[in-house]
Amino acid sequence: MSRRIHLALHPYGVGGPGQHGLWKDPSIAKDASIDIDYYIRQAKAAEAALFDALFIVDSQFINATYPAHYLNRLEPLTLLSAVATHTTHLGLVGTLSSTYNSPFNLARRFASLDHISRGRAGWNVVTSFDTGTSRNYGLDEHLDYPTRYGRALESVQVVRGLWDSYEDDAFPADAERGVFLDPDKLHALDHVGEHFRVAGPLNLSRSPQGQPVIFQAGVSEEGRTLAAQVAEGIFAPGGTLDAAQAYYSDIRRRIAAAGRDPDHVTVLIHGSPVVRGTDDAARRRAREIDDEDRDFDRSLALLGRAFGAHDFSRYDLDAPFPDVAHLAANGGRTGAAAIIARAEGEGLTLRQVAEAFAERPERPFLGSPTTVADTIARWFEAGTFDGINLAFRNDEDLAWFVDGVVPELQRRGLFRTAYESDTLRGHLGLPVPENRHTRARNLVEVR
Amino acid sequence: MSRRIHLALHPYGVGGPGQHGLWKDPSIAKDASIDIDYYIRQAKAAEAALFDALFIVDSQFINATYPAHYLNRLEPLTLLSAVATHTTHLGLVGTLSSTYNSPFNLARRFASLDHISRGRAGWNVVTSFDTGTSRNYGLDEHLDYPTRYGRALESVQVVRGLWDSYEDDAFPADAERGVFLDPDKLHALDHVGEHFRVAGPLNLSRSPQGQPVIFQAGVSEEGRTLAAQVAEGIFAPGGTLDAAQAYYSDIRRRIAAAGRDPDHVTVLIHGSPVVRGTDDAARRRAREIDDEDRDFDRSLALLGRAFGAHDFSRYDLDAPFPDVAHLAANGGRTGAAAIIARAEGEGLTLRQVAEAFAERPERPFLGSPTTVADTIARWFEAGTFDGINLAFRNDEDLAWFVDGVVPELQRRGLFRTAYESDTLRGHLGLPVPENRHTRARNLVEVR
Repeated sequence: MSRRIHLALHPYGVGGPGQHGLWKDPSIAKDASIDIDYYIRQAKAAEAALFDALFIVDSQFINATYPAHYLNRLEPLTLLSAVATHTTHLGLVGTLSSTYNSPFNLARRFASLDHISRGRAGWNVVTSFDTGTSRNYGLDEHLDYPTRYGRALESVQVVRGLWDSYEDDAFPADAERGVFLDPDKLHALDHVGEHFRVAGPLNLSRSPQGQPVIFQAGVSEEGRTLAAQVAEGIFAPGGTLDAAQAYYSDIRRRIAAAGRDPDHVTVLIHGSPVVRGTDDAARRRAREIDDEDRDFDRSLALLGRAFGAHDFSRYDLDAPFPDVAHLAANGGRTGAAAIIARAEGEGLTLRQVAEAFAERPERPFLGSPTTVADTIARWFEAGTFDGINLAFRNDEDLAWFVDGVVPELQRRGLFRTAYESDTLRGHLGLPVPENRHTRARNLVEVR
Repeated sequence: MSRRIHLALHPYGVGGPGQHGLWKDPSIAKDASIDIDYYIRQAKAAEAALFDALFIVDSQFINATYPAHYLNRLEPLTLLSAVATHTTHLGLVGTLSSTYNSPFNLARRFASLDHISRGRAGWNVVTSFDTGTSRNYGLDEHLDYPTRYGRALESVQVVRGLWDSYEDDAFPADAERGVFLDPDKLHALDHVGEHFRVAGPLNLSRSPQGQPVIFQAGVSEEGRTLAAQVAEGIFAPGGTLDAAQAYYSDIRRRIAAAGRDPDHVTVLIHGSPVVRGTDDAARRRAREIDDEDRDFDRSLALLGRAFGAHDFSRYDLDAPFPDVAHLAANGGRTGAAAIIARAEGEGLTLRQVAEAFAERPERPFLGSPTTVADTIARWFEAGTFDGINLAFRNDEDLAWFVDGVVPELQRRGLFRTAYESDTLRGHLGLPVPENRHTRARNLVEVR
């Protein structure tokens, strides 16, 4: 079987990254981000289109300047559990912070979703970059980068250990012999590490996919290292073809260097296709979206978010970019340092930085169905991704992609024409991890 | 409207408290406790019967000696979120530990369930008495009683504060004016207490019932005090009529002493009715259940659970009850001390204690539909409860109650004949708590 493209849907509710005016779209219900029926409809549309997964982002800190979709949103795992029973094939990937959730709870909640969905759960591991989040969890100081990523790695290791608490055949449930559990198939973890001590075992058996799939969005140096070590799915930034190509080859190199098989990791770039009947019509639609999103105050607030929700409205907009280097250390993404470097390098004012920061992302996937399918095929064949994490402005934009681009990709043999598996692992072509205790037992028996 | 009885259903999966042989029942699927379709069916049956709520228990520590339903169970909030979209009226009450979950996560997850269910969520606050649980969360020592209950009280206070982050009309979402949020209607909490520091605000608006309903199972002195302070629903032990009456009047006295209205708290006793066509047939069914449950090794293991998963199989069964007083301090329920007192008072052997501990609970609600309805009516009128948290051995036992007893209660005007509300608060006759910031604002305006 030739290599195929994986597609995920990232529903936006009343907004998304770089989509801060979306809530003004008359076709979007103002409570979309807290309406479970909205998400069920999105999931059903994605499943009808044979997509691999639904992806739910998260954040946990707000103030009144934050964009609409941050302000009022469902918690990812309650959301996905509700969606699970209205779908049968679609993978369900939820974002949860390894910084602010204990590994035992993480392991339980994702294992529970994995059972509820019968093998379709995925965990997008994030370390929470909003510095304000720490104050919602009793910490005065935001944990620094190395600590957050050290915790994340250890958290994933502990969670995976807990997911192996039971071997696959742990429950004979033999009423005649009075044996429900085979006690030899239940294993405590007794983990003692730098960040966590967790005894286990977990009180949940393994699902049809063995373990939920681990996702990570590795952009920074620490993020890429973590992704290379543990991720089975990676959300990559995308951007230009060159940038995507560079990321793809870098991350695959790192995965191999970490002793893992790069073909067992699915790299999904972010993509917000704009599709209409003709290339011109698609360009008009893109301009419409840009007009809806233009909002200087919001751009200034978002710029502040990269510096720990810093209030930039206190400075002179037309003076040189203020000295905020001290705010770029622990908070923010790697972006904070990059913003400062660019402001200094180009001698930009605060206004210019805020406008540059609010620049529309690249839109490589824009045009008629044929144009977009051509571009996706070209990028895919150039080694830039294994899949695309798709976001659409509204249902009409989604429909243009599903009805126009998907059949074009199928015609080219680049996308499935039917589901060939019931699990997320199956869709992504990832192996089911053998239970570590079963493996150890088998090794002993072979010797 | 005269006072009516409230009914909740507590589905057992492959077992429940004192139902440790249930998994052997040929009508119970061996994976019932992890099968979401089982819970959806139970919820639909409860809703068809016009019950107030579905109640999901929880526990987080196991070893191989634990009963079947502890070993492998879904996490309550993922479970209830999945059930929510398959029901429209039934309240959804989930158990989560205030000892091992941060208030911000608790507030978010229950608020999310409250939106998903459109106003039907309830939180059963527990402090986790299994001493082993602490080792799943990085603690060597189980927190002592006062600490656990102090945390529980503060946790509920913080969670309620976060639930009031937004006033009801916080989102004008006026596209023309470009105003999504009215910033005056968003409030940080800035809580600094003995156990928690939580800044807020929460990124979720209020639901149709204002706030999820707080439940508590207050048996010990600390538990009763907490219940009197914060609970809007109380799971009471039941037992004999005298015991239930004593508890009911004690807890109502405490609620009033705490400055709250006892009529705004719903006390639900535990009940496991056994109903058949005749009283004799019901007695035969009860004996069948008892035979299925008899298992001395399991009784010994359960006895151990009250003493921090202590292994009693190491002692001589026919010697006097061993000296385990040092294990009764922080772990266990209040039961541990009571067991020791009884063993010493009556000079019992370990075998006798294990057998006494495994004694069937009282079964006051046993007999034909008329007998059981008569008994329930008599208890209700004697002031023993506001409702019953019902558990049934299997679907046949549930059907006998729903088809036999419920119509009898309705005929007597003691149970609703149609839902009169869409929210859990509505079913229980509890007031919607006014948002504290709205109230404060209104007070200022009145002055």
